[in-house]
Amino acid sequence: MAEIEELEQRIEKLEEDEEKSMSIIVTKGDMDEAYPALILGSTAASFGWDVNVFFTFYGLDIVHEEKHKSLKMSPLGNPSLGIPNILGIIPGMERFTTWFMKRKMDNHGVASVEELMELSIESGVNMQACQMTMDLFGYSEDELVDGVKSGVGAATALNQMSETDMQLLI
Amino acid sequence: MAEIEELEQRIEKLEEDEEKSMSIIVTKGDMDEAYPALILGSTAASFGWDVNVFFTFYGLDIVHEEKHKSLKMSPLGNPSLGIPNILGIIPGMERFTTWFMKRKMDNHGVASVEELMELSIESGVNMQACQMTMDLFGYSEDELVDGVKSGVGAATALNQMSETDMQLLI
Amino acid sequence: MAEIEELEQRIEKLEEDEEKSMSIIVTKGDMDEAYPALILGSTAASFGWDVNVFFTFYGLDIVHEEKHKSLKMSPLGNPSLGIPNILGIIPGMERFTTWFMKRKMDNHGVASVEELMELSIESGVNMQACQMTMDLFGYSEDELVDGVKSGVGAATALNQMSETDMQLLI
Repeated sequence: MAEIEELEQRIEKLEEDEEKSMSIIVTKGDMDEAYPALILGSTAASFGWDVNVFFTFYGLDIVHEEKHKSLKMSPLGNPSLGIPNILGIIPGMERFTTWFMKRKMDNHGVASVEELMELSIESGVNMQACQMTMDLFGYSEDELVDGVKSGVGAATALNQMSETDMQLLI
Repeated sequence: MAEIEELEQRIEKLEEDEEKSMSIIVTKGDMDEAYPALILGSTAASFGWDVNVFFTFYGLDIVHEEKHKSLKMSPLGNPSLGIPNILGIIPGMERFTTWFMKRKMDNHGVASVEELMELSIESGVNMQACQMTMDLFGYSEDELVDGVKSGVGAATALNQMSETDMQLLI
Repeated sequence: MAEIEELEQRIEKLEEDEEKSMSIIVTKGDMDEAYPALILGSTAASFGWDVNVFFTFYGLDIVHEEKHKSLKMSPLGNPSLGIPNILGIIPGMERFTTWFMKRKMDNHGVASVEELMELSIESGVNMQACQMTMDLFGYSEDELVDGVKSGVGAATALNQMSETDMQLLI
């Protein structure tokens, strides 16, 4: 029956949308924000999901070839760290806090930002750098980590996002 | 056949849910957070999507008639800026950093927060201010940017959110 | 007709996915971030939605038995507060700002973090602590608020997330 066949096709189209995919928009570039972005992205990709990560504003630091190797975390503005602000402002404290956390992570076998970035790209995460903010901060395409796409705008990112079934903003 | 007709109606209902719509919850009120909120909201609305943006806690600043004209960005707690904390605490540095970024954006043709707010409202973004936090911070309805709805609670916002297919929190 | 019955079953499966459910990933542990996490979680659960909240990195503080009773907000890095940074670094200012906001909230009948945590667990929110970051920060299972599950990894959290129709990251 032609009618039933047509209904079946429409059901199939709806079912297809159930395949898993995720988009992450990353607007921050400190080490604390790079971790959730890269861990969620690479883990999702390892499941075979389609994953887009769109880096914009300060998030560009995470896909910047030089900067992503030395992302820092701030000793200020984060009461969870328990560092008094009067100490947090001392020159060198940002570097010390970052070093301390990196060592702690390393001791616990947590991968570095560089390793997670490599893993993400190898796992097929679609890494994209926002063109508008690249222009704003004066970053050129060849300053990006290999495998990261430039030339992507907010409109394209939003459209891709709407084709995935999970969306997160960091 | 009545049976097939009924199935068809149910498929139609499922297909309708595929029309694009987005909800954004905005809990922060600095210039750095206003940009993603307003750029994503207005771009999505320009595609013809249904967009709700719910401003709560510090996010209320972005829809406050006076405050949204002079949102600031912090020179502290953001290592991506590369400003040493010992300089960031100097009186006037917050104003200077904000001025510097605004000028940079202006030079690159990036719209201001005020312009993006106007554009968002003109494009039909459904802008809502959280009533509970308006009460908490003592904001009255007539202090809001024209076109922003007050009297909305978390329950209403969550329900609206559940009717859209993309959800972001800033 | 067997064909129609089969189609009906497939439609039913698609319709089921329309039942409401939400996942929240919480990566921050200051009072400012605990509020949206717990208000959204407990309100959604009160509607009868399935809610998972996954606490990771600093977010663990919110489910730590001792720490969740005294979460703090930072006077720095948040221009919306209007506190000059040169004052924000003074010892005791973080405690004062937190005390001031707590009193304000209390005066307006806003529940405390402790009350919202209890409410969330009573309402059936599925509260989970990230095992990797528990190991990293040296938290043991019995330090968690009663009712919070430990032993959950990013992979499990992502899979659960993909079964819900709304996802937020705080």
